[in-house]
Amino acid sequence: LRASFYPRLWQRWQQARTMLCVGLDPELEQLPPSLLEQLPRPASRNESYDGIAELLYRFALLIAEATSDLVCAFKPNAAFYERYGAAGWRALESIIHTLAFRYPDVPVILDAKRGDVGSTSQAYADSAFGSLRADAVTLHPYLGQDALQPFLEHAEYGCFILCRTSNPGAAEFQDLIVRREDGTGEPLFLAVARRVASTWNENNNCGLVVGATYPQELQMVRGVAGDVPILVPGIGAQGGDLASVIRAGLDSQGGGLVISASRSILYASNGPDFAEAARYEAQRLRDEIERLRQVG
Amino acid sequence: LRASFYPRLWQRWQQARTMLCVGLDPELEQLPPSLLEQLPRPASRNESYDGIAELLYRFALLIAEATSDLVCAFKPNAAFYERYGAAGWRALESIIHTLAFRYPDVPVILDAKRGDVGSTSQAYADSAFGSLRADAVTLHPYLGQDALQPFLEHAEYGCFILCRTSNPGAAEFQDLIVRREDGTGEPLFLAVARRVASTWNENNNCGLVVGATYPQELQMVRGVAGDVPILVPGIGAQGGDLASVIRAGLDSQGGGLVISASRSILYASNGPDFAEAARYEAQRLRDEIERLRQVG
Repeated sequence: LRASFYPRLWQRWQQARTMLCVGLDPELEQLPPSLLEQLPRPASRNESYDGIAELLYRFALLIAEATSDLVCAFKPNAAFYERYGAAGWRALESIIHTLAFRYPDVPVILDAKRGDVGSTSQAYADSAFGSLRADAVTLHPYLGQDALQPFLEHAEYGCFILCRTSNPGAAEFQDLIVRREDGTGEPLFLAVARRVASTWNENNNCGLVVGATYPQELQMVRGVAGDVPILVPGIGAQGGDLASVIRAGLDSQGGGLVISASRSILYASNGPDFAEAARYEAQRLRDEIERLRQVG
Repeated sequence: LRASFYPRLWQRWQQARTMLCVGLDPELEQLPPSLLEQLPRPASRNESYDGIAELLYRFALLIAEATSDLVCAFKPNAAFYERYGAAGWRALESIIHTLAFRYPDVPVILDAKRGDVGSTSQAYADSAFGSLRADAVTLHPYLGQDALQPFLEHAEYGCFILCRTSNPGAAEFQDLIVRREDGTGEPLFLAVARRVASTWNENNNCGLVVGATYPQELQMVRGVAGDVPILVPGIGAQGGDLASVIRAGLDSQGGGLVISASRSILYASNGPDFAEAARYEAQRLRDEIERLRQVG
């Protein structure tokens, strides 16, 4: 039996001194030509998917190899694999299994943003924790706690609940002012943060997702969520500012963040040196995070 | 090029006189023993998944064959296939492709409840409409319109947005009272319904999902959503009452519903007559829906 996700994450934060997470979200068109030219010329669509999936697998593992000592977690996003059908799914599965084998100290967060009810939710939990063997997963809050119980009830797995997302239009519903019991109001994303941190977190396995593009909202979330871990995507390509994120998001121990970058690391170079360039960028980000963290 | 989803759904409603949808959500433990005994004894986990996936595929297509003339849509839920990894995903893909080939008049709604941002959302749309070739998909509203643009921008595909779900705890966030511009309040699910029907529906390809277990909320949603199609899961096993659903949910033309049943049809009999029993139950439901629809 593997140790629980949060103790492992916490240990990793301490031992490797890093809050950086690398998002393994490869897009075929963005891969370096030196890799792309290894793509076999397909005879059919299915064969084409097999070749692409193999390439995504190789690329993701090369990036992981180049950055593993610099990260507190890896975060593959299911969408970039599902896109290529069963072959893509097998690549995703192989990536997670290989990461767990090669880097047992680095937990894997499956960014799948699932959320369904009852027995369907159970099937998704079986997929994430059973067949894919991820250590944690990202989830939608909209259906409520009872719907996500098949995830939440496993204390050994992490559940990062979407709270304030990184997209430009995140405010549409997340900023709607909802009425609180005492008659005052607060934005929906804060109500989500409050519920998750207080009620959903019985097994101490909940986290929240707040986009790096909204440091002010991140600060508000930290204000109500105590020391719950916060996964922060949107650094780099999406434009989130690191200094503001650190200032806004640190927990009472001066840590508690999983800061995820994807494109700025994956595509740091388009040349045959892409893995070294990815490492260089990951090192830079990790060091910058540690520096800013000392400043507080 | 296939015709757009909503005109096809509309045509199907008219021509086959049915608003029934069969949810193709097979669970291994529930399959009839006569099928289960065809499961080969696996030598490994991967081989076991292959055998299970093959069985799910066979079962889903037997149910489809037995009910195709009685339904306005089929609705496979991705979770029940993902659970079995790449083999499960291939079964899901084969099911959708086969349904499209055998029953070209019956659109397929992929119940996947996806929702992510930017290029990730694009990857999910590629998966649903590209490799899986579904005609419509279910989506989470939480991230807002811009996040779902890769789905919404394709007028030829349907997008059913979660509004009021069928689970017991649906109220946790969906019933929070949000402040409207005029100072009054309304529950979040109504705000979602209003936005989707007014702003998101530029391409006339949006629908809403409202659980059959909440007819009062369904009536409120219909009140603000005009004639937008509403997908209503939760009939049968989940306890939704058909008469209340029809009374609450019909649009101004006396139609507009996709009423989905899964377990009550899939497992109508546990014997070798499961397909006939499924047909019998589907026929009963379809006829009852038509009868109640005449009453209005």
